[in-house]
Amino acid sequence: MTLKLYYAPGSCALASHIALREAKAEFELALVKFVENQQRSPEHLALNPLGRVPVLAGEHGSLTENPAILSFIAHAYPKARLAPLKDPWRVAQVESFNGFIASSVHVAFAHLFRPYRYAESEAAQQAVAARAPELIRSMFDIVEAKLEAASAAGPWVHGAEYSTSDAYLVVMSRWLWRTGVAHPERYPRTRAHTDLVQGRPAVQEALLAEGLTAN
Amino acid sequence: MTLKLYYAPGSCALASHIALREAKAEFELALVKFVENQQRSPEHLALNPLGRVPVLAGEHGSLTENPAILSFIAHAYPKARLAPLKDPWRVAQVESFNGFIASSVHVAFAHLFRPYRYAESEAAQQAVAARAPELIRSMFDIVEAKLEAASAAGPWVHGAEYSTSDAYLVVMSRWLWRTGVAHPERYPRTRAHTDLVQGRPAVQEALLAEGLTAN
Repeated sequence: MTLKLYYAPGSCALASHIALREAKAEFELALVKFVENQQRSPEHLALNPLGRVPVLAGEHGSLTENPAILSFIAHAYPKARLAPLKDPWRVAQVESFNGFIASSVHVAFAHLFRPYRYAESEAAQQAVAARAPELIRSMFDIVEAKLEAASAAGPWVHGAEYSTSDAYLVVMSRWLWRTGVAHPERYPRTRAHTDLVQGRPAVQEALLAEGLTAN
Repeated sequence: MTLKLYYAPGSCALASHIALREAKAEFELALVKFVENQQRSPEHLALNPLGRVPVLAGEHGSLTENPAILSFIAHAYPKARLAPLKDPWRVAQVESFNGFIASSVHVAFAHLFRPYRYAESEAAQQAVAARAPELIRSMFDIVEAKLEAASAAGPWVHGAEYSTSDAYLVVMSRWLWRTGVAHPERYPRTRAHTDLVQGRPAVQEALLAEGLTAN
């Protein structure tokens, strides 16, 4: 069975989508129409009880959570060199950054995009959304410092070698620029990183397939 | 250099602490005093710019984020069999569950414990904390269903084999019981799982070392 990636355009599933293309994996895309609330359909909830994307479906079932999917792709397609597989400590550093994106950066954006998850009244939801930009910027302060520290070795999150962390970060950075939560001048390293990642053929293919343009 | 685990008693660092003991790893504990706000000290921020625990420090630097630390321990101590290392898809399932804990279950608790992160006014913070129990229960509904589905194969999160997911889950379950957000009768599988994990020698050692009791 060919792998199937369930996605919504421009969602965080773009990270897994990019990684599959970087790996030159055989896969199909399956669009989950958020406007029709398909992510809450019984069929989708059977794949992911959280009602979210990405989901990577294969012959042995379905896999959820970007860090796990990214890690699986890196290990299943070693020739793509999407993680420093020979060194468990360095692999863990990639997973650490991806975990930070999932649990802190993405979660900060969720408070801007989906405040209704976190409070009942409209007033409180507005307060949650109003606080989100500061939270998001506190996360990108960390990202910018990480890119600055890595820059002596190379332009990627972990220095000289491109990894799944770069594919994951660019999705968050695209959200940052699109929402206008921070001006590019505040984050020059992050802005340059976005351009560099978006210039990769695999990323351009993924954007095109989702009907997106570089940001 | 011996590994050093930075922790605060009963925090989510307990998951990494349990895994180190299950692995029979040589390590030291380093207490981070949250009451003195040590997690925000320059020394700690150099280890983890998020100002959180756990941090696992080793000869090559420091590692953050529970899922990454748990994955590192599982790979560095294969004899402990804390993940099904021979099968990338099944390893990814362990990482997927751990990612779900970090990004969704723990985050739900953060809205109860630290609503000030997510809203500015006291009224909005109260609204965030008031919504949190429902969010937490929606996550444990998923956990309970997962344990139910796995129960045909065995009592652990992934069925027959104990893994890092069990060590991570028990920390969240302990928070669930301690906060009283749900009655054990609502989650019988989860309650039985808590007892089973807390009965393991490695877990009892970890609890004792942190000055905690079974919950």
